[in-house]
Order: sequence, then C-alpha cells, then structure tokens
Amino acid sequence: MAIAQIIIVGSEILSGIVAEKNSCKLIKSLNELGFHIEKVSLINDDCQLLKKELDNSLATADVVIISGGLGPTKDDITKDTIIKHFSLRTFIDETILAKIENYYKNLKKPMPEYAIKQALIPKKAIILENPIGFAPGLIIKKGKKIIILLPGVFEELKTIWENSVVPFLEDSFRLKPNFYKTIRTIGITESEIMVKIEEIFKKQFKDTQILYLPSHLGVDLTIIGKDKKEVNLCEKEINLLLKDYIYGYDNISLEEVIGELLRKKNLTLATAESCTGGLLGHRITDVPGSSDYYVGGVIAYSNEIKKLICKVKEETLKNYGAISKETALEMAKGIKNYYQTDIGLSTTGVAGPTTSEKKPVGLVYLGLAYGQKLIVEKHLFLGTRRMIKEQACQMALNLLRKTLENG
Amino acid sequence: MAIAQIIIVGSEILSGIVAEKNSCKLIKSLNELGFHIEKVSLINDDCQLLKKELDNSLATADVVIISGGLGPTKDDITKDTIIKHFSLRTFIDETILAKIENYYKNLKKPMPEYAIKQALIPKKAIILENPIGFAPGLIIKKGKKIIILLPGVFEELKTIWENSVVPFLEDSFRLKPNFYKTIRTIGITESEIMVKIEEIFKKQFKDTQILYLPSHLGVDLTIIGKDKKEVNLCEKEINLLLKDYIYGYDNISLEEVIGELLRKKNLTLATAESCTGGLLGHRITDVPGSSDYYVGGVIAYSNEIKKLICKVKEETLKNYGAISKETALEMAKGIKNYYQTDIGLSTTGVAGPTTSEKKPVGLVYLGLAYGQKLIVEKHLFLGTRRMIKEQACQMALNLLRKTLENG
Repeated sequence: MAIAQIIIVGSEILSGIVAEKNSCKLIKSLNELGFHIEKVSLINDDCQLLKKELDNSLATADVVIISGGLGPTKDDITKDTIIKHFSLRTFIDETILAKIENYYKNLKKPMPEYAIKQALIPKKAIILENPIGFAPGLIIKKGKKIIILLPGVFEELKTIWENSVVPFLEDSFRLKPNFYKTIRTIGITESEIMVKIEEIFKKQFKDTQILYLPSHLGVDLTIIGKDKKEVNLCEKEINLLLKDYIYGYDNISLEEVIGELLRKKNLTLATAESCTGGLLGHRITDVPGSSDYYVGGVIAYSNEIKKLICKVKEETLKNYGAISKETALEMAKGIKNYYQTDIGLSTTGVAGPTTSEKKPVGLVYLGLAYGQKLIVEKHLFLGTRRMIKEQACQMALNLLRKTLENG
Repeated sequence: MAIAQIIIVGSEILSGIVAEKNSCKLIKSLNELGFHIEKVSLINDDCQLLKKELDNSLATADVVIISGGLGPTKDDITKDTIIKHFSLRTFIDETILAKIENYYKNLKKPMPEYAIKQALIPKKAIILENPIGFAPGLIIKKGKKIIILLPGVFEELKTIWENSVVPFLEDSFRLKPNFYKTIRTIGITESEIMVKIEEIFKKQFKDTQILYLPSHLGVDLTIIGKDKKEVNLCEKEINLLLKDYIYGYDNISLEEVIGELLRKKNLTLATAESCTGGLLGHRITDVPGSSDYYVGGVIAYSNEIKKLICKVKEETLKNYGAISKETALEMAKGIKNYYQTDIGLSTTGVAGPTTSEKKPVGLVYLGLAYGQKLIVEKHLFLGTRRMIKEQACQMALNLLRKTLENG
C-alpha cells in the first residue's frame, strides 16, 4: 500500500478569507490512482509549523504533497523552508527567469526584485512546468520518499497536477486503482443497515471496505476495494439484504430514477405542492428532458389555491384542515384531473418554524393518485424548515418510485 | 491570543467520497470570535491517528474541535477514543436514549442495539443539545484545555455550533472579535467593482481588508477589520459607490428582501414558472411566514398548462413561441388575475442542455405584472441547467425587488 499525505499551506485559508479547494481535488485524484491518504493538514505560512508537519508526514507517508507558498511574496515560505530544512543546493533557472522578465517587459514595468525568487530551484529537483503561472511545481526525492511542491492557486495546481504529477505517480508507483460502488438507500437508518449487513462482513470481504454516508435524505453506502470481483460480489449480497430500500447506484438521484420509470411506462405526472413550495417541481425539472413526462404543477400555498386549482372541498379543509390525509389525497386527485395526467403527487404539511392548525412542525402528508389508486403517507420529519421541505420531497419521490416499481 | 485547532474525522472524506465542508464553517466562525487557528487536520476513522493528532493539538492549542465519528456505527470512533484515551467514566443519558427509542417507536421498528451508543456520555462532559439528530455535541475539559466534539453531519454541526458552542466560547474566552460586514451585490462583475472602489483603498482603510466572493448569482464583498469604526466607514463609502447594485447585507437573501418589501407594502404575490420548474416558489417559501404574502404559483411546464392556468393565448404561443416576451407577460398577468394577487411574476426560457423553439440555451424571459404595470426582461445566462435555473430565479427576484423599491 502506498501512503500519501497532503499539506495545504496558506494563512488566508485559516483566517477564513478563502475557502480551500485544492485538497478536494488532490484527495479525489490520489484515491483514483490507488493511494491511501492518511491525513490532510491545513497550516499557516509558518516555517516551524511546516517543518514539523513535514517531518511527521515523512515518518509514515511515501508521498507528501504540499500546496501553496511558492509565490514571490514574503509570506510564501514553502520552497525556502524545504531548501533550508534539507540543506539543498540551488540555482536560478534561466528559462523561468526569462519568462518572468518578459512578462514585466510586456507590461513596460520594471521587474520587482523579489520576483526572481520564483526562479530559484533546488539542484536535484524535477521541474514541473506551470503553463499558466510563474512558479513551477517541484518534485524532490529524499531517499525513497517523494515530496511534491505545487502552487496554491487552484487553476495552476490543477493544471500541473494533471499534466505532470499524475503521469509521474502512475509511472513511479504502478498502483492498482481502487474500485468504488455506491448504493443509495432511503427509509432505513444507518444502525438498521449495520444490523442487516454485518454478518456478510464477518464471513467474507476482508479486503473490502464499507463507508456509510448518512444524511436526512437517506444513507449512501460506498463499497471500496482493490479487487473488482469482490466489490461486485459484495454489492450483490448487499442488494439482496437491502433491496426494499435501494433506489439507485453511484451518482443517480431519485428524480432521475422516477424520470426513467415514467418514461419507460409512458406516463405523465403533475404535482400539487403546499409545504414544499415548488421544491418538488424544481427537483423533477432538474432532469434534462423532464418535459417529456412532467407537464407541470401547482404551488397551492394558500387554501384558496387548493380549492381553485386542486378542487379541494371547503368541507374537507373545514373538517380535517389543510394538513390532513384527506386534503393530501384531494390535492393529488385534483391536480391529476385538472392537468389530465396519469399521476398526481401532492405534499401538505408544516415546514415550520411556527405551527399551523395546532399540528406539530415536521408533520407532512404525501398524496398519490394513479389511475383509480389513491395512496397517502404520513411523516414526521426533524430538522430546519429547509430540511423538512427536502425530506418531504425525497419521500414524495420515493412514494412515486415504489408505486411505479411495484406496478 | 487564544489558539484553536480543528480535527475532522472521516474516512469518507479522505477516500474522496464526500467533499468536506465542516472546516470552512468552523474556520469562519472561530475567526469571527477572535481565535487564531493554527491547524486543521483531516484524518481517517482510526483510533491511533486520532490520539496522536489530538495530543499534538493539545500541546499548543487552547481549544481543539473535533468533528465526526459520534454516530452509532463501528466506524464512528471519536467518542470511544477520547473516553479511552483520557480514561473517562461514562453513563447512559436517559433523555437522549428516550429520544432514540421514541424515534424507532414512531417508525414501529425495533431499536437496533448499536443505536444506544449515541446516548453514552462521559460523566464530566457538558452536553450540547442536538435538536435535529441524536448524537449530542460534547465539551470535555482537560485542565485549562477544552475539547469540543461535534457530529460530522453538516446541518447538525452547524446547529449545535451556533446554538451552544459560540455562546460557550464567547463566555469562556472574551476575545476581541474581528468585525465583518458583507455587502451583497447583483448585476455587476468583480472587475467592475474593483475599478469603482480601488481609489478609496489607496487613500484610507489601511487596516481593513476586502474579500471578493463572486458567483453566478452575484458578487459578495466582505470587509474585515478589528476596528469597528473603520469597518463601518468603509462600508458607507462602498455603499455610495455601488448603491445601484446592492440588495442587502451579511446573510440576507434576495427572497428575504422581497419578503420584507411585500409585507411592508401589504402586497400579495403569485408565480408562474416554466423553465425554473418550481425553484422560484421554493426560494420564496424558504422564508418563514412567506404564506403572509405568497399565495402560491403554477409550474406551467407544458404549453397546455400555460393556456389552462395562465390563460396564455394559443395565438401568442403560435406566433411568438413559449419562450418569448409576449408569453412571459401573459403568464405574469394571467397568474395575477387567476390567483387574484397584486403581483404576478413569471419565468420562461431554455434551461438546456438541449434547445427548444430553436432558441439558445440560457435565453430566459422574466415577466412582472403589478397593477397596470407590465415589465419584461430578457436574459442570456451561461452555465449548466441548474445554474441557468438559479440565475433566472435570482434575476426574477431582483426584478421584483427593483420594482418594489422604486415604487
């Protein structure tokens, strides 16, 4: 196993001035290459901290990637620190110096003295060309360990990484890449999944890892392993155990799943939203080509619109309230009839933070009208106003999915 | 100076499965409180690594914040590691246990054995209530040092942080905070802003910093400084220079701004959305209490619904197409009349990736009907399907804001 660590240098990050995004790019790419990433550190422009962090990293990692601090200004300390720390001999690279001089010549401005710093290179380093900036990337070998220095500017880092570092790492390590498979579930908690699947991990799949990613919209399980066959076998076993709760794989969304089902069955859909306020329509229409099956919806936020468009009866609202299974069903049926679609899907509930009709925040009814079939679901969601809206839409899409899949 | 360090625990992050966002929130808030952040570490779910990292952090930091690993599953190792590392005595918190039991009771499912782990609490810890999940935050004191444990789920971390940790840190440290003021603009680019405001920074405001945060929905400018007076003065000067483009300050959103305006003027609103597919209604209804002025809308995705609800004329669709200023205006007027509101706001355009009516992807018409007034705006947005929808909604809300502000 090859181990990588990443050190991101930059006081602007820890001062909260810019959001850091280099690590995300490096993590993703290193994983794809087959590295095991042990740690990422974000530190200030501070020589002592950098030395300490680098020594710690080199104790266990095969490759240490350092981003940031290669520029010309005083707070750019990375290259100097490495040069001093390892007592490296240096030289001024004429090609890089000419590039900098030329830039200032074109601007008709004198080259500032400190700009030359970017052309200072350790003698034994491999220079990684920076086609969109001055400071090149550098590869420095210390025994069997490799240190890679990259600029902090995202676009420069990304370009040097893809052009030069990826081929270098592929060539130097010849690692077996990792295989990933994500299983997306809804309607089951992380703990319940563990109870269901732990047995298969006791018996087999010793080289395969499972990661749980829970959110208020469901739990994603990612299977990771070097052996593609084992990853696939593991996926098959989990499929059998969790089949009622799986809506898709990898990056597919629930709105894409219902889109495919509606298209396959040649059905049309309309929505009637109260508490979700348009989010359900927004999610459905996020899928390119959704106009093939989605004719539109109504945002029936007030009772007047529930009556006007969905034909919810005055009586129903009076006897049961807007937040009731009766209203949810009349909304679904009403929009289906008015818009002349095969299916009507509705939401009504309390998104909060204040309650209405003396019903608790998070109470949501979902209605579905499909042919002669009428289905209603009652939910009590936790979280903020936004999270309640999001969960209501997720469960509404899931209700539609289940109905379509079970015929 | 008070020093903070952050440790983010989660193999899902270093495996490249999810992008980490907790550190960004914590960095920003700790800086606002006046802390100096020395280091952020991202590590795997690994007891030995966590212990080593924590000991390193405690050597220099006054406060160490650890996010992630408080959940019920086997890979949630943070709390157990801390308990063992410091030999803490524990108990099962009955309130938390009851909350978990109640959750499964409502679901009519047995509580999995694992779930109890979330109610296990070190005896001397301060419990930080988690209103939207099970695992509470914890504050553990080791001599003068403070360790704060928070869940890894962003929404939970954010809520506990704001409700409980910020007041605790303010009270315990009484630091001189940094002052921040964010000015939110729309309709002007970053470069244009720079040209307009650079002069004032040459003359004054030497201790005050400006940060630009551009996105496809506008440019936010953040002024940062320790001297509140200077920050306020700087804000005033920028206000004068950019006043036509500023819609609000700090965290206020455009939907909150139009909500306040509609409420103040006692006006009601209805929406008619084609290309935005419900996103406009979703944004408007994200504001608590929006039912006071927003009666609802129609998602008129198909031409049939445009005719049925918005009373767009067959002739208009035939002569000008659905993506035209004529249709946008008829939609706005139609929904205003049908829903009997003061204002009707409409969107129609091509979100892509494919075109319709031979019109370019990104072409959007926005319509506004207010009393006898009819306004239409034509835009050509760049970006993905989602970005085009988002920009269309942002500009529609801005059109409404401008109209309401100018009487």
